[in-house]
Amino acid sequence: MQQTGWHDTIVALATPQGVGALAIIRLSGEQAIAIADKMFYGKNLTEQPSHTLHVGTIRDGETIIDEVVVGLFKAPRSFTKEDIVEITCHGSMYIVKQIVMLAVHHGARLAKPGEFTQRAFLNGKFDLAQAEAIADLIHADSEAARKTAMYQMRGGFSREIKALRDELVHFASLIELELDFSEEDVEFASRQQLRKLVDNINQKITGLIDSFELGNVIKNGLPTVIAGKPNAGKSTLLNALLREERAIVSEIAGTTRDVIEDEMTLGGITFRFIDTAGLRETSDTIEAIGVEKTKQKLAEAGLILFMFDLSTEPIEAIRSEIVRLERQPTPYLAIGNKADLCDKDHITAFEELPNSIAMSALDEKDLQQLEEAILQKVNIEAFNTGSTVVTNLRHEQALVHARQALNQVVAGIEQGISNDLLALDIRQALHHLGEITGEITTDDLLANIFSKFCIGK
Amino acid sequence: MQQTGWHDTIVALATPQGVGALAIIRLSGEQAIAIADKMFYGKNLTEQPSHTLHVGTIRDGETIIDEVVVGLFKAPRSFTKEDIVEITCHGSMYIVKQIVMLAVHHGARLAKPGEFTQRAFLNGKFDLAQAEAIADLIHADSEAARKTAMYQMRGGFSREIKALRDELVHFASLIELELDFSEEDVEFASRQQLRKLVDNINQKITGLIDSFELGNVIKNGLPTVIAGKPNAGKSTLLNALLREERAIVSEIAGTTRDVIEDEMTLGGITFRFIDTAGLRETSDTIEAIGVEKTKQKLAEAGLILFMFDLSTEPIEAIRSEIVRLERQPTPYLAIGNKADLCDKDHITAFEELPNSIAMSALDEKDLQQLEEAILQKVNIEAFNTGSTVVTNLRHEQALVHARQALNQVVAGIEQGISNDLLALDIRQALHHLGEITGEITTDDLLANIFSKFCIGK
Repeated sequence: MQQTGWHDTIVALATPQGVGALAIIRLSGEQAIAIADKMFYGKNLTEQPSHTLHVGTIRDGETIIDEVVVGLFKAPRSFTKEDIVEITCHGSMYIVKQIVMLAVHHGARLAKPGEFTQRAFLNGKFDLAQAEAIADLIHADSEAARKTAMYQMRGGFSREIKALRDELVHFASLIELELDFSEEDVEFASRQQLRKLVDNINQKITGLIDSFELGNVIKNGLPTVIAGKPNAGKSTLLNALLREERAIVSEIAGTTRDVIEDEMTLGGITFRFIDTAGLRETSDTIEAIGVEKTKQKLAEAGLILFMFDLSTEPIEAIRSEIVRLERQPTPYLAIGNKADLCDKDHITAFEELPNSIAMSALDEKDLQQLEEAILQKVNIEAFNTGSTVVTNLRHEQALVHARQALNQVVAGIEQGISNDLLALDIRQALHHLGEITGEITTDDLLANIFSKFCIGK
Repeated sequence: MQQTGWHDTIVALATPQGVGALAIIRLSGEQAIAIADKMFYGKNLTEQPSHTLHVGTIRDGETIIDEVVVGLFKAPRSFTKEDIVEITCHGSMYIVKQIVMLAVHHGARLAKPGEFTQRAFLNGKFDLAQAEAIADLIHADSEAARKTAMYQMRGGFSREIKALRDELVHFASLIELELDFSEEDVEFASRQQLRKLVDNINQKITGLIDSFELGNVIKNGLPTVIAGKPNAGKSTLLNALLREERAIVSEIAGTTRDVIEDEMTLGGITFRFIDTAGLRETSDTIEAIGVEKTKQKLAEAGLILFMFDLSTEPIEAIRSEIVRLERQPTPYLAIGNKADLCDKDHITAFEELPNSIAMSALDEKDLQQLEEAILQKVNIEAFNTGSTVVTNLRHEQALVHARQALNQVVAGIEQGISNDLLALDIRQALHHLGEITGEITTDDLLANIFSKFCIGK
């Protein structure tokens, strides 16, 4: 697992690109403090204790590049367990470039994406699942995503995987003990007991695999289709739903508007709205949707908000639409819009239909009621229980492979195959569980994982 | 100058918006450490010494928001001279929002743009010209711009203004001393001496005002027009010139590409290329340019790169074009492109013309020669002398007003007006110089200056 250039000192901008008040440039490695000392004027950093801050200037010969604050983290009390120097400079990309290049001039090397985290992992600061959780945490944009990533980063998920591994190791030890005494024909555990043990582990792994569907929603948002006839008020509703969220975000100024353009966080869950432009133009009813693309979008949906214009659509047409919605598997809400424009009987008739909510998309109180109804449709408990959720496709795949190996074990027990063959399959399952936390790893796997990180992390 | 909410503790994200490894949230004010203590678990920050770093978690009740590093700067040893807490968290905008909102919940207030710098100014950390230089430094995108801003931020410019004020105060004291003894008809300084003193100050102010033209180029780049017939190779040349600069920038990944799209830094000077699309389509020669817009662009130019296609344009046509270029005031280079495609005599004839350089835009060595020629055309010494350059329009305006007042003084001396009237004009000049460094200021002026800062600065 030793890397080439392992004794190199690496340098990178750690804060986002762009103009801001401050930027952090991070150096990590054996020479981090020595290199910083060649650039920093104010104090001799080598002589300073760990976890201290020092004001001074970064100089290139006679030229003062910037006035900075330098933070020292001495090995092993740092993120990478190596010496780390964090230079907080003015947030100009020009100055950042000058300082980074100066560090390179004095012997540092530009860090590869994720290289700080990779070093932390290789130095035993945390395991691989925890390292991956850091990237998830950085990209978290809802409470559920943050919470799940934080649980994983703090080692909760890893502990569960480790517990499963321990159980499997215990199981393997029973099998292998028998193997050692195989000539004496001793049976330390009944086949039935073994079978029960494997089933128990398998059940836990299956629970984790099943949680990935939820995990994917937590990480990427719940695909939500707003459907309905043209002019039912779909865009009005979407804008109304997004409005407040935008206002909150804009309080801390100019956050990536494009990202939230079609996303909304409600009750800590991200709802990702899916364009139904095709639906709007070509069809009146779900049945009539011939377009493959739209069918696909509805199939992807985790929630359908089907809008009706109560002021123009007759109740019979609405009823038959809702009957169709009832027959398909995705949770839905039937939203009767423009309720302010039609008579009470019509509304009452509509409200007798299942999953119906009559409203005006322009009314703030109605919107709040709709939001509550949406949250009730989503299995909110699943998001909020402390139970472990797999959010990473790589982990899910490893769990699937581990389960396949365990199924081989079960089949082997049933067929009464020899212990040494059983042991092989058990080791295979252990291998796959070990991949998750990084006990088992390859350079390719690591390169693949960390190359997806941003530079400076 | 006391602000409302002066005893407030303010909070803001100090690093750029967006996703990155790290982000800094800054708290400043009397309650900064107390508020941080309500959120931070790991150590009691109040008990920790200044300039130290502490690892722990930010919590909202039972919920762990993030694992963070907290830096402490205790008053007056901080940027604002108030207590400052810098929370370095994971660079997720969601987490940043949670922590900022939590700080607000515990009693902090969202900082207004530039409010940290404004507090530093009001607490006497630096003067107004230095505060403004910080904004310039953050936006610096060339060595000349960085250098000028750094000189101003470190107080070089302020010292010169202060020296001018001191001279004026000395002058005023002579006048006012005479005023005190006016009944005795004492003359402490001859009118001639006074006149000489004012002329001297006026000359220095004029020098500063004149430097603003250069200052503007340093700050905003030298407007450079690439002109010439269609297919002379203008785009090829521009791309060739920009290529290396882009490569350097891309080494530190994805820097604001749109900003450098048409800018190039050469010898520490930013060249801002001006679109001559109009020129390309409608005209063959400078004389023929009827389009007002193109005329205006040429008038704005600080440098003209006029390109000829040596492989097709006859030497006589080129010569008459260059004669026209010689007659207009803007520095220019006559670039004979595609020299690799034509015979030696033609090239020799071209190279006998003034300011000519024969080349192939595709040849790296030729490009380097062109870059050297460009730098020779620009008054590179002006950029590199340590002499003060005014880069701020507000400062230039204040200097112009100060000079107007001093011209009144000169006129007054010549007309032999009374000392008390002279003293009025001198005080007026002092007032305008004081505006630059902020000895004289108003809430409106400050609001206007700091509102242009980014939030978190």
